[in-house]
Amino acid sequence: MMTATKVKERSLLGLKDLDSSEIEQLLERTSHWDNQSQKLTPVLESRFVSNMFFENSTRTRFSFEMAEKRLGAQVLNFTAAASSVEKGESIYDTVRTLESMGIDAGVIRLKPAGVLEQLAEKVAIPLINAGDGNNEHPTQALLDMYTMTKHFGALKGLKVSIIGDILHSRVARSNLWGLTKMGAQVQFCAPENMKAPELAAYAPYVSMEEAMQADVVMMLRVQLERHASGILQSAEEYRRQFGLTEERASKLSAGTIIMHPAPVNRNVEIDDAVVECSQSRIFPQMSNGVPVRMAVLERALL
Amino acid sequence: MMTATKVKERSLLGLKDLDSSEIEQLLERTSHWDNQSQKLTPVLESRFVSNMFFENSTRTRFSFEMAEKRLGAQVLNFTAAASSVEKGESIYDTVRTLESMGIDAGVIRLKPAGVLEQLAEKVAIPLINAGDGNNEHPTQALLDMYTMTKHFGALKGLKVSIIGDILHSRVARSNLWGLTKMGAQVQFCAPENMKAPELAAYAPYVSMEEAMQADVVMMLRVQLERHASGILQSAEEYRRQFGLTEERASKLSAGTIIMHPAPVNRNVEIDDAVVECSQSRIFPQMSNGVPVRMAVLERALL
Amino acid sequence: MMTATKVKERSLLGLKDLDSSEIEQLLERTSHWDNQSQKLTPVLESRFVSNMFFENSTRTRFSFEMAEKRLGAQVLNFTAAASSVEKGESIYDTVRTLESMGIDAGVIRLKPAGVLEQLAEKVAIPLINAGDGNNEHPTQALLDMYTMTKHFGALKGLKVSIIGDILHSRVARSNLWGLTKMGAQVQFCAPENMKAPELAAYAPYVSMEEAMQADVVMMLRVQLERHASGILQSAEEYRRQFGLTEERASKLSAGTIIMHPAPVNRNVEIDDAVVECSQSRIFPQMSNGVPVRMAVLERALL
Repeated sequence: MMTATKVKERSLLGLKDLDSSEIEQLLERTSHWDNQSQKLTPVLESRFVSNMFFENSTRTRFSFEMAEKRLGAQVLNFTAAASSVEKGESIYDTVRTLESMGIDAGVIRLKPAGVLEQLAEKVAIPLINAGDGNNEHPTQALLDMYTMTKHFGALKGLKVSIIGDILHSRVARSNLWGLTKMGAQVQFCAPENMKAPELAAYAPYVSMEEAMQADVVMMLRVQLERHASGILQSAEEYRRQFGLTEERASKLSAGTIIMHPAPVNRNVEIDDAVVECSQSRIFPQMSNGVPVRMAVLERALL
Repeated sequence: MMTATKVKERSLLGLKDLDSSEIEQLLERTSHWDNQSQKLTPVLESRFVSNMFFENSTRTRFSFEMAEKRLGAQVLNFTAAASSVEKGESIYDTVRTLESMGIDAGVIRLKPAGVLEQLAEKVAIPLINAGDGNNEHPTQALLDMYTMTKHFGALKGLKVSIIGDILHSRVARSNLWGLTKMGAQVQFCAPENMKAPELAAYAPYVSMEEAMQADVVMMLRVQLERHASGILQSAEEYRRQFGLTEERASKLSAGTIIMHPAPVNRNVEIDDAVVECSQSRIFPQMSNGVPVRMAVLERALL
Repeated sequence: MMTATKVKERSLLGLKDLDSSEIEQLLERTSHWDNQSQKLTPVLESRFVSNMFFENSTRTRFSFEMAEKRLGAQVLNFTAAASSVEKGESIYDTVRTLESMGIDAGVIRLKPAGVLEQLAEKVAIPLINAGDGNNEHPTQALLDMYTMTKHFGALKGLKVSIIGDILHSRVARSNLWGLTKMGAQVQFCAPENMKAPELAAYAPYVSMEEAMQADVVMMLRVQLERHASGILQSAEEYRRQFGLTEERASKLSAGTIIMHPAPVNRNVEIDDAVVECSQSRIFPQMSNGVPVRMAVLERALL
């Protein structure tokens, strides 16, 4: 069995706690897997990995499953919807149960704040954060950073604008921690009620006009579900003020790339025609998610 | 990467666009896999296939998964119920996403008319139709045709009655296109409000009495869900007029076989006792679905 | 194809019909797999096993899937929630369908009484009971018995108290049949309206005080769902009268072990602090479930 320290080193809870050399190593291994011509490299053949999704996400679960299967791992999917969590069982008990049954690593996505950190203290297998409340989503930020590296050659000195609901965004947070460690400069743009005040010390809030002046324009997904609760005036209004409309996109510098963690709300935070325009990296981001997760799994298990 | 033409040739969107020699070849390969004594032949070991079900179906998904696993493919299941399609993401974005992540082929089932055809224009991987609205369901028709071939030796000259809700049936359409190409003769029997007028040019509508005079009597599933909307007077009444009752079954010629795409509504379109009678091929149809899908997957990927 | 008798011998429907030598053999093979250092032993590589869950259970499905994958089997999951059972198809038709498609064994969990036994008469593949209404849950009892054997060396002469809703518990029944066959002595403790009168001939009902005097104290899960229907006065009241509170646990003999089939309702039938105390075997039970199921699968398929 691994020592507790070793387990923690192999877990990936967030980018806040990694140093730049660890990030660099992950990006290098991502590049290795990205350039692998063979799709299947069964180095994890006798390892059992469970995707434990207490919060739904097709895209992220699918991306992890591709990564796991490309490495030949045995994959067991768990989703809360079809589970005894419905009958009141806690996330903790579920994770401990799956651990007891012999999984070697867990990919976990969940909503409640602080639970992932507590879990990582209590279990003896590496945990990989696949979305942790409003806290971090490190593999998303790594794939964003890899996408930028692939396009610009390096992260150092890049100016990255992150636009949208910063307050509730784990993607914004993980990118902030990761990008600044790697020498990039982050700026936010958000409606007043979607600003996270505690992040202002690390990245300035700028106007939409200023935000467009950047190497990377990263649009965040609007949580339309929040609409009812009044946080979002209207999709139309949001688009007008904070959307990457065709008009705004047409004025971007030719060297600027457009990113989005997806799934997109077409014609809300980003116009339909912009999603697959030549400056968009939205689908390449998804492609890059697989080798990123292979690198993270390899670090957890090899 | 395959050329666009190549990809299209490897897709299976419907039988309407195949010629008889292509159908024949698929039936021959079906026979090959049907007669294979080994269950596992891992020729697709490094290929990643996704079952993308935007419309539920246990049976069809399971049958494809058996076929994929018998060929050793890496299988990733996606169902809309547990997915971000719920949060408004379009089918198009989902399929493009999974494609970006590196799947080699997609098996797809969906409801909205015309979407599959558009998708096939836009993606660069082979797509296999596992049920396309009211349009086609080619693997179902292929397994029906294989079942007939196995029993009668050939399709040419067979008389096939298809009975039930022709209007909404993709099974009826795929069988019509496939069977007529192979020289069989199709006739329909349906309540007035379940007739598809545009198909009358290809197959006559006959009475229930005439429909019973055939080599194959294929009963379609009644969509009991439509009951409420008034299209279906009552299950009792439907059975009396268009059901394969024990009485009707007892008068069939000894050489006639009974088919149904399943799942059956026992005692609605077909009587309980008829489902597993000696002339019924309903469970053999399900068995035959697996080698048919192996042949289709092999065509898509090898 | 196997003969009908052979198939039945390979099925595991319950412990009531096994004799002690068969149970012993299963426990021996469990020990073999439990002590296997390799996680993956692909002896079932070309066998197709379907987990057919007509009743939800994360834990049990996951445990079987681990066991199947540790033996290298091809696994196909089926759950009723995402299936055509919703459109009125019977359990029988579903199981016969999956059998037709070529699975080699089925792990099945279902609610309606008597259906499993009928199924086993009609299908030609081994069936493994993963929870059968209020009747039996044999792999749970086997893992309980294995856990006891591991701790005490043997089952003969042990005194086992089973506490809770005996009336509705398949776990209680399977343990009763299994343990008594192996020479252990079972006693029950239950609220008046949760007693199963027909079991009184096999095991006495005792008071909570007496129940605490045993080698094994096995707490059953309270079905909080039944609360509404009035069978359960209140969770508080239940805990006071029949819960393994910290106070009761502190008075147990040092040699007594605490068990629970999980998932637990913390602070209802068992106190939070007791779940992971040194005398608890609750998480080890879960670990033991995997080798037990490997032994059962091996018996079904090799």
